[in-house]
Amino acid sequence: MAHRRTLRVDYDSSTNVVCVVGSELNVNLDRGAPPGSKFFSVKCTANVKFELSPPPVESSHGALVPLSGKSVILISMSHASQSEKDDKVIWTAMKIQKAFNPTQVFQISLDVDADRDGTVEINNPHKESWTWGPNGHGAILLVNCDAEKIHDKSPDNEDPRIVKVSDLKDMSLMVLRTRGPAELPEGYKLTMHISQGDAESVRVFRAASREAVKNSLHKLFSSFVKDYPLVLSSEVLSQEVPYLGGSAEMNFYVEGLRFPDKDFDGLITINLSLLQPVKEGIPETPIFTDKVVFRVSPWIMTPNTLQPVEVFVCSTSDNYQFLKGMKALVSRCGYKLKVCFEYMNRGDRWMQDELEFGYIDSPHHSFPVVLDSPRDGHLDDFPYDELLGPDFGYVTRVAHRKDVSSLDSFGNLEVSPPVTVNGKKYPLGRILIGVAFPTATKGRNMTKVVQDFLWAQKVQEPVALFSDWLCVGHIDEFMTFVPAPDRKGFRLLLASPDAAYKLFRGLHKDGHGQAKMFDGIHQIILHGCIDWNRDVLKRELGLDDDDIIDLPILFKLDEEDGSRAVAYYPDMVNMIVLGKDLGIPKPFGPKVDGRCALETEMCSLMEGLGLRCTFIDDFSSYHKLLGEVHCGSNVLRKPFDFKWWNLEL
Amino acid sequence: MAHRRTLRVDYDSSTNVVCVVGSELNVNLDRGAPPGSKFFSVKCTANVKFELSPPPVESSHGALVPLSGKSVILISMSHASQSEKDDKVIWTAMKIQKAFNPTQVFQISLDVDADRDGTVEINNPHKESWTWGPNGHGAILLVNCDAEKIHDKSPDNEDPRIVKVSDLKDMSLMVLRTRGPAELPEGYKLTMHISQGDAESVRVFRAASREAVKNSLHKLFSSFVKDYPLVLSSEVLSQEVPYLGGSAEMNFYVEGLRFPDKDFDGLITINLSLLQPVKEGIPETPIFTDKVVFRVSPWIMTPNTLQPVEVFVCSTSDNYQFLKGMKALVSRCGYKLKVCFEYMNRGDRWMQDELEFGYIDSPHHSFPVVLDSPRDGHLDDFPYDELLGPDFGYVTRVAHRKDVSSLDSFGNLEVSPPVTVNGKKYPLGRILIGVAFPTATKGRNMTKVVQDFLWAQKVQEPVALFSDWLCVGHIDEFMTFVPAPDRKGFRLLLASPDAAYKLFRGLHKDGHGQAKMFDGIHQIILHGCIDWNRDVLKRELGLDDDDIIDLPILFKLDEEDGSRAVAYYPDMVNMIVLGKDLGIPKPFGPKVDGRCALETEMCSLMEGLGLRCTFIDDFSSYHKLLGEVHCGSNVLRKPFDFKWWNLEL
Repeated sequence: MAHRRTLRVDYDSSTNVVCVVGSELNVNLDRGAPPGSKFFSVKCTANVKFELSPPPVESSHGALVPLSGKSVILISMSHASQSEKDDKVIWTAMKIQKAFNPTQVFQISLDVDADRDGTVEINNPHKESWTWGPNGHGAILLVNCDAEKIHDKSPDNEDPRIVKVSDLKDMSLMVLRTRGPAELPEGYKLTMHISQGDAESVRVFRAASREAVKNSLHKLFSSFVKDYPLVLSSEVLSQEVPYLGGSAEMNFYVEGLRFPDKDFDGLITINLSLLQPVKEGIPETPIFTDKVVFRVSPWIMTPNTLQPVEVFVCSTSDNYQFLKGMKALVSRCGYKLKVCFEYMNRGDRWMQDELEFGYIDSPHHSFPVVLDSPRDGHLDDFPYDELLGPDFGYVTRVAHRKDVSSLDSFGNLEVSPPVTVNGKKYPLGRILIGVAFPTATKGRNMTKVVQDFLWAQKVQEPVALFSDWLCVGHIDEFMTFVPAPDRKGFRLLLASPDAAYKLFRGLHKDGHGQAKMFDGIHQIILHGCIDWNRDVLKRELGLDDDDIIDLPILFKLDEEDGSRAVAYYPDMVNMIVLGKDLGIPKPFGPKVDGRCALETEMCSLMEGLGLRCTFIDDFSSYHKLLGEVHCGSNVLRKPFDFKWWNLEL
Repeated sequence: MAHRRTLRVDYDSSTNVVCVVGSELNVNLDRGAPPGSKFFSVKCTANVKFELSPPPVESSHGALVPLSGKSVILISMSHASQSEKDDKVIWTAMKIQKAFNPTQVFQISLDVDADRDGTVEINNPHKESWTWGPNGHGAILLVNCDAEKIHDKSPDNEDPRIVKVSDLKDMSLMVLRTRGPAELPEGYKLTMHISQGDAESVRVFRAASREAVKNSLHKLFSSFVKDYPLVLSSEVLSQEVPYLGGSAEMNFYVEGLRFPDKDFDGLITINLSLLQPVKEGIPETPIFTDKVVFRVSPWIMTPNTLQPVEVFVCSTSDNYQFLKGMKALVSRCGYKLKVCFEYMNRGDRWMQDELEFGYIDSPHHSFPVVLDSPRDGHLDDFPYDELLGPDFGYVTRVAHRKDVSSLDSFGNLEVSPPVTVNGKKYPLGRILIGVAFPTATKGRNMTKVVQDFLWAQKVQEPVALFSDWLCVGHIDEFMTFVPAPDRKGFRLLLASPDAAYKLFRGLHKDGHGQAKMFDGIHQIILHGCIDWNRDVLKRELGLDDDDIIDLPILFKLDEEDGSRAVAYYPDMVNMIVLGKDLGIPKPFGPKVDGRCALETEMCSLMEGLGLRCTFIDDFSSYHKLLGEVHCGSNVLRKPFDFKWWNLEL
């Protein structure tokens, strides 16, 4: 709908009016006509389109039309003025000819990449709104949470300046295109503005250089740009921007400051208005406003089925055996291995628990972002000090110390591969977290600020599992996902005391070892906890029993905490998944024909999926400390090919 | 989708299992069968339905079916057990007959008025979700913000007890219907639970009486009920509830605690689970969960087109003339008049500015709710002390003193009659507030906490107008709505210096008075401000020029604050609308033939709509203090017939 503006003209004088292409002037003739006028006529030059309201009975170019209190001329302009004398509307009443002069016609368009193809188009008709899906529209913003500065670094969104030109690529280009006379009429202004609410989430910078920088990020970076003044921020909600005259483009850079959260839906509107002067001391009137909407990219997690880029482990004084196994595995697979040495980890070996890798994505740029856990062990500084950097973002949520429990470690935060549940697609999978039973009157939970953050990202709708039955309380103690060539493209692996029971019973029957090596009643109890999760996973991920593989794993109640469980022997489900290679805690099970029966079983279960098992000895340095291979490692993975904005939410 | 539960059965013993109608047991036979079994067969009693997975090739009641690791019996029950021996599943393998006994079958349903007809139906299939519209579903909750107690009163939602049985009608009835054996099996429990997030917004009470109170609110209130224990609150997220045995209903009362706001979408889920005991120290496993969703009623404003119930004014030492006029008008119209006397108002006469009347609504109950402005003049205590009471709710938003300006007075908060805008219906109208221009680098605004509250109600999507051009800064200084028999059912009345200019010019021409009584250039400037609002109102309310009537009203720049405007003479648009009667500030315009020309014009404009004008002298006691009739009064109106949950959002 065209922007309409009411204009009152005085019958004492001709009127010069500033117009904007795309808006419509609603000129009330009631006051403009000399007293006693009964009829009027209208003529105009070619650039001017007009309609009369009420519509005259017949075509009336130049013809006399009855004048009433309601007579209105609706005027619109097809393009900007070339010179100041181009355009004219002349209307006559009582033989007095009145010139109504839209002498200054401007074309103004605030442009963004609303069609999400990586380039800023001209005046996209949908730029004012945001919709999901492959046929959706609306521009996209990244939280500028990486750090361009290497020394004295901090996330760029904490710095209200652009200190390096490379920082521009983390922002969304916004172009102000204007066309019209060389200058705005005296006292008129162009002003960019945002609401108070949006100002907490966005900053806008301007390219100070008058040279029109063409719509290509590449060119921008090849020349050093000295100065990008801050236009809008939480301190400045409205600021004048220069009008360049003629046909011009001015580049702006829009910087996202924070992720969607409970109190922020991720949408941001930026407005540009043309202001008309009124009188000293009275604020100028906006006579035309163009606006664009951005959505901030959510933080997206990467499941085991995505290709690894780099593997992270800690080196400690006692984990040589583990490290040797991991190095061999990772180097054989051809991925990078990053070892966090003891001066940094200070003995904290739980690389999985301190951080979760994810990424943010837009049509113009994408980079990994680490979510730092509120856990705060001795690895605490690693994500900020070692990971944050150019094109590597950082985000955290701060919780009260008293609200943080073992369930806030990110071994308790995983994500499924893509699934479809009762026809509803989750092409980015679903986040999985572990909590207490919703019915529990007491129990440990993942802290609310992290849960709120995860839910607010929207694109990987979380599922809450029950992990409080475990002493450590992490979902990676009883489940993982591995890639598969068939069915849904993956299998869910679940720890199964039943499968272990069956295996050992078979061994016993064949004369190998004792079947009664474990307390059967506890296994049934603990199996109930896993089965509860199994039912939730089947329901919330749309899985069949055939999508699930039961691994022979036993639990026991912890000796200190008599009511929560720990793994009986190295917990094979707590593995690292690197493409078709699995790094599995070496279970040290009973040997049959010289080979560990648990390893044999594991290999036989995984072979059918084309997966290779490598058993890694983590017994003394991880298992005895209640963790395993997965707890002690982390994997940075490639992003999804699927673009989050193509989700149909 | 049926709730599925995985169950492992042991081959050493028969298994007694607790089942819930509507859920499905997934019994894995792998472990249950004696070692070496190759086939099995299944039989069952009439109440038990079963399916086999994988499905056998032919019908297999009693026939042998091949046994594999994946063999599963899916069992569901059609109704609750009458006795403990009723139901049985017998399966046989290797000639060993195994009884799998769903001996205890329960029917459990947590019920609400999900179809919004005022009564709680049985197990509505849509009770777990909430959708808008006439075909929508989901139960509704009121914020219990009235005060049943008359002495030492406070809003009921601030008191975690039910002190009067009449308070129950402000809550939503929720019924737990159970059917089954006389008792739950040992260690089993029924538990009601809510999430931590929802607990801030809801409390649940239970009728302690064992007598099943039938599904009628009326009966409840006719008998005094002694004790309603608190079941759930922010302190207690999960609590056991009694199982009554046989066929029983237990009543719960759900109390809304807070209105939708920026951080609360208004939705609340209440869960009921059947818990299975596990082992001392280990939390019980939920084996069945039923849930219901409520949405809290938004706070809804009432436009001028709704029928008045009661008119509120202040009595001060100097407003006798005004009060006399108002009393005469209101008594002639037949509405109630409530006078706030000086001991309460302490000289603050601006009844419009201190509060806004609205209401909340549900299928079972509705009552008015006053929104107390953060303005805090001397009338500050009036809404709480005089209005809050039984079936009269109270809500406020607290702002920092420094953030509160004249724009926070509720003369600056109005609501339009129902409108349709480009096909989008607003059957409850749209809220209108006044702020600074969005482009202004400085200026006054309505405080953010109130704006956030208004936007969060959703059902009357607000429109921001520009009122900061006025010295007092209230939108009721330049606009109001009156009912009309034609078109959209109303007219927007706008102050129009042009209309005044034209009127006075006509008078001058006819020899009455001076036309140049005002400064023309200022009128044009100020008209620009009104026209900007006119354009916004036309666009956002879908109005044509014919829906708008221009009233002859002049403004001038205030003598002290040289850049903001005040009314030149009593501002006729600042009127009270009581059905077809308008109480209009007496303008004291030039007399023509013994009658005020402004009154004549006003009457002639309103007569066509069937409206009666009564001019009220507010000159010395209101106009000179920069307010008028509307500023000095308030009207409690009947709610809309249209139900907010029927909106299609």
